[in-house]
Amino acid sequence: MHSASLPAAAAPAHRVCEATVTVTDAAGAPLADTELVVTQRRHAFGLGNIGFDFVGLANGEPDGIGTESLAQLYTDVFNTATLPFYWGRFEPERGAPHTEQLLQTARWFRERGVALKGHPLVWHTVQPDWLLGLPLDEVEHLQRGRIRRDVGDFAGLIDTWDAINEVVIMPVFDNGANAITPLARAKGRIAMVRMAFEEARAANPHATLLLNDFDLSSAYECLIEGVLEAGIRIDAIGLQTHMHQGYWGEDAMLAMVDRFARYGLPLHMTESSLVSGQLMPADIVDLNDYRVAEWPSTPEGEARQADELERHYRSLVAHPAVEAITYWGITDAGAWLGAPIGLVRADGTPKPSYHALRRLVKDEWWLAPTIITTDAAGRFSVAGFRGDYELGTGAGTTPFAISSDKQQINLTHPTETPKG
Amino acid sequence: MHSASLPAAAAPAHRVCEATVTVTDAAGAPLADTELVVTQRRHAFGLGNIGFDFVGLANGEPDGIGTESLAQLYTDVFNTATLPFYWGRFEPERGAPHTEQLLQTARWFRERGVALKGHPLVWHTVQPDWLLGLPLDEVEHLQRGRIRRDVGDFAGLIDTWDAINEVVIMPVFDNGANAITPLARAKGRIAMVRMAFEEARAANPHATLLLNDFDLSSAYECLIEGVLEAGIRIDAIGLQTHMHQGYWGEDAMLAMVDRFARYGLPLHMTESSLVSGQLMPADIVDLNDYRVAEWPSTPEGEARQADELERHYRSLVAHPAVEAITYWGITDAGAWLGAPIGLVRADGTPKPSYHALRRLVKDEWWLAPTIITTDAAGRFSVAGFRGDYELGTGAGTTPFAISSDKQQINLTHPTETPKG
Repeated sequence: MHSASLPAAAAPAHRVCEATVTVTDAAGAPLADTELVVTQRRHAFGLGNIGFDFVGLANGEPDGIGTESLAQLYTDVFNTATLPFYWGRFEPERGAPHTEQLLQTARWFRERGVALKGHPLVWHTVQPDWLLGLPLDEVEHLQRGRIRRDVGDFAGLIDTWDAINEVVIMPVFDNGANAITPLARAKGRIAMVRMAFEEARAANPHATLLLNDFDLSSAYECLIEGVLEAGIRIDAIGLQTHMHQGYWGEDAMLAMVDRFARYGLPLHMTESSLVSGQLMPADIVDLNDYRVAEWPSTPEGEARQADELERHYRSLVAHPAVEAITYWGITDAGAWLGAPIGLVRADGTPKPSYHALRRLVKDEWWLAPTIITTDAAGRFSVAGFRGDYELGTGAGTTPFAISSDKQQINLTHPTETPKG
Repeated sequence: MHSASLPAAAAPAHRVCEATVTVTDAAGAPLADTELVVTQRRHAFGLGNIGFDFVGLANGEPDGIGTESLAQLYTDVFNTATLPFYWGRFEPERGAPHTEQLLQTARWFRERGVALKGHPLVWHTVQPDWLLGLPLDEVEHLQRGRIRRDVGDFAGLIDTWDAINEVVIMPVFDNGANAITPLARAKGRIAMVRMAFEEARAANPHATLLLNDFDLSSAYECLIEGVLEAGIRIDAIGLQTHMHQGYWGEDAMLAMVDRFARYGLPLHMTESSLVSGQLMPADIVDLNDYRVAEWPSTPEGEARQADELERHYRSLVAHPAVEAITYWGITDAGAWLGAPIGLVRADGTPKPSYHALRRLVKDEWWLAPTIITTDAAGRFSVAGFRGDYELGTGAGTTPFAISSDKQQINLTHPTETPKG
């Protein structure tokens, strides 16, 4: 039986699944001894980035940052976009959320083959001013309503959500006046998690709902254990890894991942970033406290970023618990904290890190179009990353998905080109 | 009505309770217009210290450290002694625990008016070697059995226990081979807490059971919230404050205490220490990692320790949630890490810190013997710290306890001296 396969050792063994595909024609007869092309279309592994820069373009109001050319670079590498649902910006005026704008953005991404994730439903930062001064029970009522409304409005388009963000510090963080910290202080962290998950779950039972945190210490472990003991179902654990102060290295990163992997839940690296310029000083505790007038991307920094980015993805893809890595920024233009964390420079040209990541996900870990011939029973085998594939002949293409190892796939493929 | 009272402003208002005492004779007639002496005997507030140094003395095998003279200093200030139940030392040979030795020590303290606390029932450090290599379910079985056995054996003598120690790092701390870390890793932190509390509670339903930790970060908050959400009843939260690297100051200490006070549970400062010599360098993370050949107590250090100790006790007694402060060491001789944290020098002479603490708890916060006269109804009032008191006349003494403000206390007091 002929096989279309990734080269051995191109990827961690647990990532590569071998499937046997049997192709029949419309009448059920095997498509025997037929030459066809097998092509990978999409990774199932979550290759995410933020989609914040394309809201204007998607809504017919392009700005100088989110251009068509940047979108081309984006969609060539990333298959998932995180959209901004920061409550204070999404609904600056009570009762007038920017639902249509983000619906249009989500549709725009979906048309380009990019899945969506919403971030975040509950957070103590970027809160609407109009919550301030309301009694706690009204804040809770409004918070619950906003979760139900937004998760419901986007169900089918956005089916993955950071249900709650940074719960570890939520009741104790001092970031100025906001209505969520006092609510978390009164209810407790686990009750806040329960609130977020039960409302989101009710509005979209098919959603993948995450806890997300930057605090990767034992505090997050304790929180997760409490949440699980309380019987709250979480679908994935979100781990932020902003590395403005330098790459943590494979060993430290994987030791951390191992600590969270022991809960048996999928891990999503929800916010990864690496700078291609000077590093932020190590003594800064809250990254938000570091502000500089200019933070240029440098040739040395870009070489380092490319090397570290490749090591970061390579080591995490090698860990069986990791199901997604979201990079936090496509371009330096308008990047968080002004840091050169983008994979594309502010002038729109890709950095070495972009090319390094593209080479990994679209070359080393990607099944290039491969010509094979079916056997007498219409069969061939294919081995590659979990994801979407298609087979093609002169008569057309038929999609299929590889989702597990030793999978048996039966396909019906046309034997005649459709009439013009 | 005459009153025996602490001077106004001698203590935080919430610590001082005013009680009205009505004294009658054996026939029920008011002891009217009678002069008597009111004397405080004991603080209800937990003034603890470790009792480790007196195991030998109590068992008729005095050493050079735990002398009668040190015992005098101890019992004049402290009303609660923490006894060592470190499993590996308490039961170095499987099935042969040092129960009799600690029973005798506990009785010895009780005869001197000192209550007891046991420390700890579950911990990953100082484990018996004979646990190593056993299957996890057998380790759990043995751990449960040891809790039941020891809490049961000491019920009535020791009714306060650190049920579990340092759970925050329990599953992840690397301190060499021990059998508890893998158990905690397999069961999870909350299940470990549940195990400790359910076994101890079953063996002594009247016990006060504590969580105890040195990690006072959000991690401990998250753990506590998980434990409470899981429905595990904990009686007090234990907060360790070893300050070998310097006094934290009132503001930092009370901000920390406030974070834990919001769970509505009593707080016990279970392990407080302040050095009277050079401070440990600030960059040491695990205090156990700092070892020096000599760590002398100095005159300047002793003055600083006395000042800080007074501020520490004064600020914590002012916080309504704090119910006990245990100092970690009476003497420098054999002190933890060799640090001069004792209130008594290695040569047996008290440091200024000892005198400062004694002055607080036996003078400023203590109702000195006060002569008063009952009114026509046999009444007088008394205001002081919660605790044990007695009234005396030539005919004898009658004990009473003040446990709440505005308390009405009825006492029967003899009017004749008992016949010789």
